[in-house]
Amino acid sequence: MLKVGIVGGTGYTGAELLRILALHPDADVAVITSRAESGAAVADLFPHLRGHLDLRFSEPDPGALGGCDLVFFATPNGTAMQLAPELLDRGARVIDLAADFRLRDPDQWEAWYGIPHACPALLDEAVYGLPELNREAVRNARLVANPGCYPTAVTLGFMPLLARAVIEPSWLIADAKSGTSGAGRKAEIPMLMAEVGESFKAYAVAGHRHAPEIVQNLRSFSGVAVDLTFVPHLLPMIRGIEATLYARLKDPSGLAREELEGLYREFYAGEPFVDVLPAGSHPETRSVRGANVCRVAVTRQGDAGVVVVQSVIDNLVKGAAGQAVQNMNLMFGLAETQGLQALALLP
Amino acid sequence: MLKVGIVGGTGYTGAELLRILALHPDADVAVITSRAESGAAVADLFPHLRGHLDLRFSEPDPGALGGCDLVFFATPNGTAMQLAPELLDRGARVIDLAADFRLRDPDQWEAWYGIPHACPALLDEAVYGLPELNREAVRNARLVANPGCYPTAVTLGFMPLLARAVIEPSWLIADAKSGTSGAGRKAEIPMLMAEVGESFKAYAVAGHRHAPEIVQNLRSFSGVAVDLTFVPHLLPMIRGIEATLYARLKDPSGLAREELEGLYREFYAGEPFVDVLPAGSHPETRSVRGANVCRVAVTRQGDAGVVVVQSVIDNLVKGAAGQAVQNMNLMFGLAETQGLQALALLP
Amino acid sequence: MLKVGIVGGTGYTGAELLRILALHPDADVAVITSRAESGAAVADLFPHLRGHLDLRFSEPDPGALGGCDLVFFATPNGTAMQLAPELLDRGARVIDLAADFRLRDPDQWEAWYGIPHACPALLDEAVYGLPELNREAVRNARLVANPGCYPTAVTLGFMPLLARAVIEPSWLIADAKSGTSGAGRKAEIPMLMAEVGESFKAYAVAGHRHAPEIVQNLRSFSGVAVDLTFVPHLLPMIRGIEATLYARLKDPSGLAREELEGLYREFYAGEPFVDVLPAGSHPETRSVRGANVCRVAVTRQGDAGVVVVQSVIDNLVKGAAGQAVQNMNLMFGLAETQGLQALALLP
Amino acid sequence: MLKVGIVGGTGYTGAELLRILALHPDADVAVITSRAESGAAVADLFPHLRGHLDLRFSEPDPGALGGCDLVFFATPNGTAMQLAPELLDRGARVIDLAADFRLRDPDQWEAWYGIPHACPALLDEAVYGLPELNREAVRNARLVANPGCYPTAVTLGFMPLLARAVIEPSWLIADAKSGTSGAGRKAEIPMLMAEVGESFKAYAVAGHRHAPEIVQNLRSFSGVAVDLTFVPHLLPMIRGIEATLYARLKDPSGLAREELEGLYREFYAGEPFVDVLPAGSHPETRSVRGANVCRVAVTRQGDAGVVVVQSVIDNLVKGAAGQAVQNMNLMFGLAETQGLQALALLP
Repeated sequence: MLKVGIVGGTGYTGAELLRILALHPDADVAVITSRAESGAAVADLFPHLRGHLDLRFSEPDPGALGGCDLVFFATPNGTAMQLAPELLDRGARVIDLAADFRLRDPDQWEAWYGIPHACPALLDEAVYGLPELNREAVRNARLVANPGCYPTAVTLGFMPLLARAVIEPSWLIADAKSGTSGAGRKAEIPMLMAEVGESFKAYAVAGHRHAPEIVQNLRSFSGVAVDLTFVPHLLPMIRGIEATLYARLKDPSGLAREELEGLYREFYAGEPFVDVLPAGSHPETRSVRGANVCRVAVTRQGDAGVVVVQSVIDNLVKGAAGQAVQNMNLMFGLAETQGLQALALLP
Repeated sequence: MLKVGIVGGTGYTGAELLRILALHPDADVAVITSRAESGAAVADLFPHLRGHLDLRFSEPDPGALGGCDLVFFATPNGTAMQLAPELLDRGARVIDLAADFRLRDPDQWEAWYGIPHACPALLDEAVYGLPELNREAVRNARLVANPGCYPTAVTLGFMPLLARAVIEPSWLIADAKSGTSGAGRKAEIPMLMAEVGESFKAYAVAGHRHAPEIVQNLRSFSGVAVDLTFVPHLLPMIRGIEATLYARLKDPSGLAREELEGLYREFYAGEPFVDVLPAGSHPETRSVRGANVCRVAVTRQGDAGVVVVQSVIDNLVKGAAGQAVQNMNLMFGLAETQGLQALALLP
Repeated sequence: MLKVGIVGGTGYTGAELLRILALHPDADVAVITSRAESGAAVADLFPHLRGHLDLRFSEPDPGALGGCDLVFFATPNGTAMQLAPELLDRGARVIDLAADFRLRDPDQWEAWYGIPHACPALLDEAVYGLPELNREAVRNARLVANPGCYPTAVTLGFMPLLARAVIEPSWLIADAKSGTSGAGRKAEIPMLMAEVGESFKAYAVAGHRHAPEIVQNLRSFSGVAVDLTFVPHLLPMIRGIEATLYARLKDPSGLAREELEGLYREFYAGEPFVDVLPAGSHPETRSVRGANVCRVAVTRQGDAGVVVVQSVIDNLVKGAAGQAVQNMNLMFGLAETQGLQALALLP
Repeated sequence: MLKVGIVGGTGYTGAELLRILALHPDADVAVITSRAESGAAVADLFPHLRGHLDLRFSEPDPGALGGCDLVFFATPNGTAMQLAPELLDRGARVIDLAADFRLRDPDQWEAWYGIPHACPALLDEAVYGLPELNREAVRNARLVANPGCYPTAVTLGFMPLLARAVIEPSWLIADAKSGTSGAGRKAEIPMLMAEVGESFKAYAVAGHRHAPEIVQNLRSFSGVAVDLTFVPHLLPMIRGIEATLYARLKDPSGLAREELEGLYREFYAGEPFVDVLPAGSHPETRSVRGANVCRVAVTRQGDAGVVVVQSVIDNLVKGAAGQAVQNMNLMFGLAETQGLQALALLP
């Protein structure tokens, strides 16, 4: 039985980790920390955990955390990099659900996140935890950077096209939409029901932190420079990301719709958590609500060689906590799907 | 391994049965019928089941259904009573998720549902499948009437007070609110997003079919006549029922808030799927979304001896498919919680 | 042209005042204050006002405000009572949209709002601004206490029954539900979309600040003590209050459904902003969204003499800013409906 | 006073016409037809109109309609073309809110709408009623084709860029999102709250009927062939369209963000119903809810010469009924803004 710690368990990704781990047969949450809620019962904050989890929040304690087999950081950006080195030294392995170890380049990190990186030496060691991209590296990693939610949806959507080099990498468009849980459990006016409900807008149109992470991923398949325009939008709902991706075929006369679908099926054959829908399908976010799966469909529109990809995930599951548990399973030699078989909640 | 059939699998309760049974270790869905969708893959209609269920809808066939150990009816009211007798004769046991076998009195059935009962002789044998009320009878039942969603929430909320005879049975108020999935998956203008969203209203204020079912339950604990005013309301959301119940203590000076909570804790001690919250709590429907649990809180307001009870369930789970599987577990000697351990999806 | 000031214009009631006054032919907003946003253009905070309002927030300045004909306070509770006396001295008239002048009894105010009242001497002069109750007094008032949102819906719902003395005043139940804009525009986790969306719960079940205000109103019609149980609930939507009210007829054999409807029609005859629906109707909150109207229906259920009333308002309009403008119209001799003719936005 | 008729008044665009016209000082609705609801009071179907409209639905009667100054068709596609010729002959002018007269080419109409055009001879005379494009022609039109909702948002978004010929017309992307009221008031399972709520998806990814209409518009400014990829999406809300548009500058080093904003400001100077926001803004659909306005922002992201435009409208107002009244005002020499001054309802 794995002994697991969670740092920062009062947010949505922390709560989702608890929900998944509560039923995981091979892992036990031994420590969960929160400075603000120290001493409080976790189930008082998250009533859906009542009866399933008899645990209290504690102050972060490197000793207690370092004694775990694995520590998840479900903290704001910039926290894990402060504490992870010590925990690794104490023998714990680490999965960071925030952005601290996602970007290879510490200068890029500082540019987008506004503070210098606290342990740039670890960036080389950190493995980007997208199993469909880095499965073998994850198995042996001490330190895993769990991907961002948008990067998961967009990367899985573009990957077959770029890996097979059938699209122009010089003008990629990702129009992405997210539910509000992606903004976290923070007291902020713009995320109030009365602000977000019954409305829709783009945000961060000038540039979003997830763009360099996506570009880093896309370059790794294509081996060439890519140019990506990424515009995120805020949906009047809680869970779910949909990304509609646009690219241009190198050869407009080349791949018919069915061939594109075949390319995706072949590329993702055997992947337990990527589901390729028939060309012409319209994946819905509700079809992945609460489930650790990315559903993707690819098609063409018109004759101009434009490929349209739709990719949906639950931002808190395949886009965060579920993927983190998938990584945990890989790191500790468990079945990759262990604890992650739950079906989506629909309707 | 139980061999299970589902009649009428294209609605929300049918889909929810499939979601739960797909992961149930002791049951296999062998047959699922739908006249309208006969031949279609279930996962084409319900994409969240893709990869978990390789089954097609078929025409209802008494032979195939009668060869099952258990047949669930997830059909409109008035369907099960046509087919259940034959299936029982063929040796299958039956759980009806509709209303056909809930009311003891066939005249009352006809009055509220508008058609004569097709097999009144079975009404005596049918067991009302609220395990917290009828657990032992369910174990041996051939035919179980799965309770309505409102009746589940309201009955569990009032039961301790009436069973312990501490309230006046002559003026009970149940102000209940339901998400729209309770209305089923039917093409009707009043249930459109554009009609229901961002709005709220009462309905059936002149009298709702679930009222006689609730009254039948309440009389069974109190042993006396009860007078209930029941007003249902429609919530701009999908899943969840909240019922706020009002009653008057026989002795206004009698039971303090903490004593009421104690009464509920004692009454529901050992119940796996009723969770009594501390007095003064405010149970949220999201804390039971997707979970087979009723969370209930009881308190007093002011000095006038008015007791206020709040009861929440997921109408599709503890209010329908989850409770049906709980009944199945009891009928076949399985652990009552088998396949029903999933936590609520929150946020 | 009336010269109007608004203190505290960054909340929802302030924004709603601006929306209504922007098209009011007889009033001009000359001053709008906000310490936090001083200097900012109002239309930058509230983009729906772009092109309709060329005004900037300023620091609260008694001189500027005192020079207005009328000052609205759209501030948190406890603010107006600090500044209103000075403004009245300077000759301005005042409408407070918060609770400072609603309760007659300063001790009760302190008990529910937690701070001593700053100007108890004004409580006798203040007129409770529910025009259907106090129309003539409002016309001559210097200081109007604009009613709370729940009190507006509940008072208008119970008023005909109590004024005509046909119900028992000793057990009144008000089960009320509100959209989240009622909680104001404040950075608070419990009002996040991800907390409120797709969920429903009661709150303040132990007692809500609006209860004594409602009781004060109800006593004024009945002339006797009333006992009210009031439970508010939070709806997963933005605007709208629905209150379902339960009372017992003094004579259960007395008033038939149609007579009850007739009583309401007669009582509210000539009222421009109360719309009595046919008995058996189900008023929807969307039918009043954005409109200064209360729609109400009354009926009976069963034979036990229980009357059920449904009352709906838009909490920001008839429950706040619209009613305040209605009061303004009365105070300054304008047509009562001036600037308030907008129809509800449906769907 | 204009005498106005409405054919097909039971849908959302019909209801919205009624809401706007009820307060229009220069128009009276004299006739409103519906075969299904003939004889019923309009306010019984649409309770928000109670007290504002004393009118009953009648059977469509060419005589009564032909006696109106203007007849609006708020009917399904394919209806207006059956009746419009006769009404024009009788001297009425006509605005069709459906698609019958939008496409110049009857073959294209038949290809997308599946039936032959009933009066192709009128297609040359019909004026496409986008005032920002065709204001003068609308003034003199007998027959106006009111634009589609998506085409309004997308056309107004692209128009300045194409009219000034600063972008490549060969790869235009329009990723559009609509609330569910755009699908109309029809009994269809896919538009149920329980299907649409808390979910998001693209639809019609293979090609949508509004695409040829948009292309027809875009060609008219650019004078050259354009290639457009158009993907609509369904939002879990009622009103509002947001379109995020992507295009490539002919000269990537050419126009800075501020210059793009300036181009839009100059282009739309004097337009009463197009509001250009500062570059870098994020127009929200709620800022136009219920208002006859298109808010638009333009910016660049990165260095690759990609322009991003965001355009928001209320699909039922500027995307349907509001624009129709704007056209009516033009056709009859009224102030263009008459009856259309209402501000958006926010929050």
